[in-house]
Amino acid sequence: MNPAQAVMERCDLLATCTEDPPSITRPFASDSMRRAQQYVKEWMRQAGMIVTRDNVGNLRGRYEGTVTGTLLVGSHLDSVRDAGKYDGPLGVMVAIAAVQRLHDSNKRLPFAVEVLAFADEEGLRYRSTYLGSRAVAGSFDPQDLDRADRDGVVMADAIRAFGGDPSRIEGDHWSGGDLLGYLEVHIEQGPVLEARGLPVGVVSAIAGQSRMEIVLTGEAGHAGTVPMDRRRDALAGAAELVLAVEAAATQEGLVATVGSLDVEPGVANVIPGRVTFTLDVRHSDDLIWSKVSEALLLRTRETAKRRKLAVEVHAISENAAVRCAPRLTTVLTQAIKGSGQRPIELTSGAGHDAIVMSALTDIAMLFVRCKGGISHNPAESVAAADVAVAIDVVNQFLELLAKR
Amino acid sequence: MNPAQAVMERCDLLATCTEDPPSITRPFASDSMRRAQQYVKEWMRQAGMIVTRDNVGNLRGRYEGTVTGTLLVGSHLDSVRDAGKYDGPLGVMVAIAAVQRLHDSNKRLPFAVEVLAFADEEGLRYRSTYLGSRAVAGSFDPQDLDRADRDGVVMADAIRAFGGDPSRIEGDHWSGGDLLGYLEVHIEQGPVLEARGLPVGVVSAIAGQSRMEIVLTGEAGHAGTVPMDRRRDALAGAAELVLAVEAAATQEGLVATVGSLDVEPGVANVIPGRVTFTLDVRHSDDLIWSKVSEALLLRTRETAKRRKLAVEVHAISENAAVRCAPRLTTVLTQAIKGSGQRPIELTSGAGHDAIVMSALTDIAMLFVRCKGGISHNPAESVAAADVAVAIDVVNQFLELLAKR
Repeated sequence: MNPAQAVMERCDLLATCTEDPPSITRPFASDSMRRAQQYVKEWMRQAGMIVTRDNVGNLRGRYEGTVTGTLLVGSHLDSVRDAGKYDGPLGVMVAIAAVQRLHDSNKRLPFAVEVLAFADEEGLRYRSTYLGSRAVAGSFDPQDLDRADRDGVVMADAIRAFGGDPSRIEGDHWSGGDLLGYLEVHIEQGPVLEARGLPVGVVSAIAGQSRMEIVLTGEAGHAGTVPMDRRRDALAGAAELVLAVEAAATQEGLVATVGSLDVEPGVANVIPGRVTFTLDVRHSDDLIWSKVSEALLLRTRETAKRRKLAVEVHAISENAAVRCAPRLTTVLTQAIKGSGQRPIELTSGAGHDAIVMSALTDIAMLFVRCKGGISHNPAESVAAADVAVAIDVVNQFLELLAKR
Repeated sequence: MNPAQAVMERCDLLATCTEDPPSITRPFASDSMRRAQQYVKEWMRQAGMIVTRDNVGNLRGRYEGTVTGTLLVGSHLDSVRDAGKYDGPLGVMVAIAAVQRLHDSNKRLPFAVEVLAFADEEGLRYRSTYLGSRAVAGSFDPQDLDRADRDGVVMADAIRAFGGDPSRIEGDHWSGGDLLGYLEVHIEQGPVLEARGLPVGVVSAIAGQSRMEIVLTGEAGHAGTVPMDRRRDALAGAAELVLAVEAAATQEGLVATVGSLDVEPGVANVIPGRVTFTLDVRHSDDLIWSKVSEALLLRTRETAKRRKLAVEVHAISENAAVRCAPRLTTVLTQAIKGSGQRPIELTSGAGHDAIVMSALTDIAMLFVRCKGGISHNPAESVAAADVAVAIDVVNQFLELLAKR
């Protein structure tokens, strides 16, 4: 079986490690994650790696080098609810396949390659993303240990049950000496590569992301008796803003989304008194983002004033855009050429472990084309031929890095 | 104590008959309803009425006339959850006060006056409105007897526990001979009388009401990776329609409301794939309503097509407008003048027992000013002086009717 075919079958097998068959739902520190890790541990060993598991629950497979330094290559094994097969696992499988190729030819690089299979990126179970890479990068927040999941299980207990020691997560912080960087292979989760007819692409930057919650408060009232000109309809105000967000994003060339919107009281015959909605804005250029955010907040206040609505804006999160390291992307571009493909650069609109890892070391990301740009969905699909290219590019990347 | 003051105190006392003190929540066939009826029965008796309770649970207080025929005067004793004191009870209390005045002066009219205190108008317990008046008007649906409340108690059992025989509700259908009509006194639940500075008004018609559910289906997708021009965002489509509904209603002089709107999956970082919302349109003129409804449905399909969304429209209910009988409203107008007030006509945007009773006999309604137009809310408020006018107008109405 060729290596790409093996990766495809391994992704199929990992998809059976789920809390919710036939859907794929693999949360942090769950039984399904334990089963997935049993497979991955074995595959890492077959590829000549020494495998350990750290306290937060990441698997780490280390393929020693002949001289010094370590290149980290990773992605995550957890999933969203009702997920696809490739978001996360594909990156780990491609990394293992690349090391397998070294091992099969008895080849050692001057530096070690350490494959990281992160225990939590999506944050499904504890609504706290990047637990795995945070532990490695040293930015794990011990307060998160008190979070409870939907069944009331506290994170510290879940980690203990999974075999880790929550009081020693600080020790998961990378301490293995010189780092050459962090490489992550991931499905694109967007339509660009497919539109260009290319199997892989180099990520130039991971978009910054700001998320806020906006609450508009008007006055609930009887849908039959309050005349239109006396209404303070919070939903009508929110509707204006949903359209303003769409228009501003289209005009400025970024993406912005109102994904959640709750109406109170939310009854057919009552004028909406209160609407709470989220605004998610992604940007690879922090300046354009500032401009759009300011314009939308101004528009929000203007709409609220005109409609006599009270407005509250709560910042939920705000992350600046993260640039990939030219030192590494140059090599990755060369590797793509060496693999016979046309290299293109693109921006990642989604967040990835690489964002967190950028605090520890230089990062690079290789995107793999996925069908229709669909992700976080059972319909996620990648082609074995594209996976073959990705494995080859990673191997070429390793060899080029060894020559420098 | 003057009669209006007595009505105010009785409404206060009925407010203590609740499942949920200090809030007012008085469902159909409940313990709180039983306590309320004990008071009301006594007050009816004090006003010289013979009191019976029918099988569905309505109280009927009959003040006999000297010749023939019956005028029905009624409203309901049940409430919504966390209700005000006056929506329903005020009409019953004013009717009793008017009969009390006849009784106190030993006066009999040629026709009988029968005060109906309906057992269910709001439909809180069984999500089936107008149970009380439907039984009297002969439109009670026996299938409703199988409905279960939130605790699983079936309506037939609740009626039995309350003292009625569910198999004999058909016998509640009015059979007392010639009817002169049905008069209902009710708080306006809107701001018109307050804006005009008038204590009472004559209802010309009860608005028709159509309710539908509209489902827009686009495609869920990652908020960070799908470019704006490739999105099929169901919420953006719904937002257009919320604004179109508002604009059309304002322009055509009716009221229309999107009161409920649910987003799926409803997560901050996912483009909305599906939105379900309600559209409630009230109208006193069925022609204008048809025009607006057609225009809005056209707009819905146009928006859906442009945005590549699938659209489903489900009719939930559709009731034509009900006109009050000029034969009675003329007399009511005269009574208002006789009471020293300027008469105005207004439309009822809310539904009332009078709608159901219009299938049995001619109807008329007297609205009483309420503060801020607020109803279905603990802040419901009416002035004793306005109640005094209402009692006087009902008495004048009875006397004028007796002279015709």
